[in-house]
Amino acid sequence: MFTASKNTAVVALSGGMDSCVTAAIANQGFQVAFAHVNYGQKTESRELKAFNDIADYYKVKERLIIDFNHLSKIGSSSLTDKKISVSKADLNNKEIPTSYVPFRNANILSACVSWAEVLKAKAVFIGAVFEDSSGYPDCRPEFFEVFEQMVDLGSKPGTNIQILTPVINFSKAEIIMKGMELNAPIHLTWSCYQNEDEACGVCDSCALRLRGFQKAGLEDPISYKTKPNYLDVFN
Amino acid sequence: MFTASKNTAVVALSGGMDSCVTAAIANQGFQVAFAHVNYGQKTESRELKAFNDIADYYKVKERLIIDFNHLSKIGSSSLTDKKISVSKADLNNKEIPTSYVPFRNANILSACVSWAEVLKAKAVFIGAVFEDSSGYPDCRPEFFEVFEQMVDLGSKPGTNIQILTPVINFSKAEIIMKGMELNAPIHLTWSCYQNEDEACGVCDSCALRLRGFQKAGLEDPISYKTKPNYLDVFN
Repeated sequence: MFTASKNTAVVALSGGMDSCVTAAIANQGFQVAFAHVNYGQKTESRELKAFNDIADYYKVKERLIIDFNHLSKIGSSSLTDKKISVSKADLNNKEIPTSYVPFRNANILSACVSWAEVLKAKAVFIGAVFEDSSGYPDCRPEFFEVFEQMVDLGSKPGTNIQILTPVINFSKAEIIMKGMELNAPIHLTWSCYQNEDEACGVCDSCALRLRGFQKAGLEDPISYKTKPNYLDVFN
Repeated sequence: MFTASKNTAVVALSGGMDSCVTAAIANQGFQVAFAHVNYGQKTESRELKAFNDIADYYKVKERLIIDFNHLSKIGSSSLTDKKISVSKADLNNKEIPTSYVPFRNANILSACVSWAEVLKAKAVFIGAVFEDSSGYPDCRPEFFEVFEQMVDLGSKPGTNIQILTPVINFSKAEIIMKGMELNAPIHLTWSCYQNEDEACGVCDSCALRLRGFQKAGLEDPISYKTKPNYLDVFN
């Protein structure tokens, strides 16, 4: 239920679990507008469906679909480049995985800030996770702090847009627990990097998600081709 | 002529005069790769032609065409929103003009940095002008300084990309003189916000360009529907 007195916030909603719980948090204090980016990733249509399902769940009319073709044109990521296959998860690996899309979050946030400026929104939310994540450089808390300064300098006088990352220091298990507490529609989310029908269970994104549920002692509501036990992998 | 020892730089090339002279400057010290953004602006095809003509002139093979549809979807600028007409120039106006596209430069630079990271480029050049310009907030020197810090924090370790704005403090007349000095193909550029066949001579962009030529005491090589004298407008 929106009230006229609520400030507007743009939420970058990929359709995954982290952004869904971020949307649930944003929805508590703001009138939310949802933005989604298609960037030529292999599971593009499935993620877009998850986005629309979540937006329907929250009865959000303000939706912006952003089509980026340059991230797939430049390639170099297993998510967008057909020549690079999505690798099986190695949760002990400290290297940046092949799924890394160069500077993706800056591209997404810049587009969201353009929209936020027009909507006179007070915040842009993004569900970046740093600690319990794949180690992408554009998920570092310092990155978002400086991004916010850059927004202040590069937008119209009178614009005052905060960049908010409420789950950045959460573990996946904590994100799941927060989602349960707020009745976030986790059953509508999509995380798998590889498949669009049934989650593979073995890519980085499935592994992080499944380990989160296993740590929380809960059952993931979506179905998987295979469900390895990730609890024996480093904490 | 490129040499293997030269570092690569990505140049954001709109097809206008400022970016063309910026490309000429970049070309002196770097192996250049040219990026162009279509963002649903009214003169999109003419600007793309200018981009390709300039790239042909410099024999640049590395070209990236970036299609942004979100900037026209969100509207609010006379360049992208059909409901807002391109206004006649008022060079005495200190307000941000209706042509302002919210946060455009952050969108453009983010895409260029993604590409630069893949190309292992050392710099991204953009032809932003601050002093003798329309007063867009995303043309402020401080904006680009903080943007560069944000790039350092958000890109892969080992990436070191400078954001270079060599004409930011130039007047239009100085840009034209620098272009002449470097044999930049100013005759191939397109600046008009309104027309695609013959420049209107009266929009903000034509006015700033014509005043620059008039101050430099030179003839603009492109043709105009009308060529007002802008020298009597404030310095």
